[in-house]
Amino acid sequence: MKKIELFKENGFKDKTFSNYFVHESAYMKVINFNFKAGQELPVHAHDLEGELAIAVLEGKGEFLGADGASMPAAPGDVLVSAIAEPHGVRAVTDMRVLVTITPPI
Amino acid sequence: MKKIELFKENGFKDKTFSNYFVHESAYMKVINFNFKAGQELPVHAHDLEGELAIAVLEGKGEFLGADGASMPAAPGDVLVSAIAEPHGVRAVTDMRVLVTITPPI
Repeated sequence: MKKIELFKENGFKDKTFSNYFVHESAYMKVINFNFKAGQELPVHAHDLEGELAIAVLEGKGEFLGADGASMPAAPGDVLVSAIAEPHGVRAVTDMRVLVTITPPI
Repeated sequence: MKKIELFKENGFKDKTFSNYFVHESAYMKVINFNFKAGQELPVHAHDLEGELAIAVLEGKGEFLGADGASMPAAPGDVLVSAIAEPHGVRAVTDMRVLVTITPPI
């Protein structure tokens, strides 16, 4: 059992998003991404089995998908996606999200 | 790909915590628990392989462990635990958490 305080451990960077590896095991990989307003994790996909969940902890932005699709993303919103399906995140305000990938890639 | 707005989908209940099943698949189970101040998910464990992560979305409380252990839990805090290890949550204020269990149980 371990506790991680993301708001203390991970800040924001000027040039690109700041990612912090929260946990990695045989079961899952957990990463916290912090975006300054306007930064993004570009749409991408991996040709692998599995799923990921992206939970918004703070701030507002958009979940991104295939073919330019986007959905508003606000605190308490969760996106669930196959790892093989195109996905991304764009920040409108400074934004913190938690990404869980299983099985870990 | 699906988006779930937890702050809209799940509220609070007077008698006990309110749980909302966000996602279940072969890869993971994702559950949102909302606690009113003073409510708790009592310490428990399952004799199974796997891990869980509990992320605080809103409000303050405590992560609970074996033998009466407790740790403060605030927004952005994440607890990672084996499923087989005793774990629980107690709310001090109204509190929303997101629990991810992998493999799903």
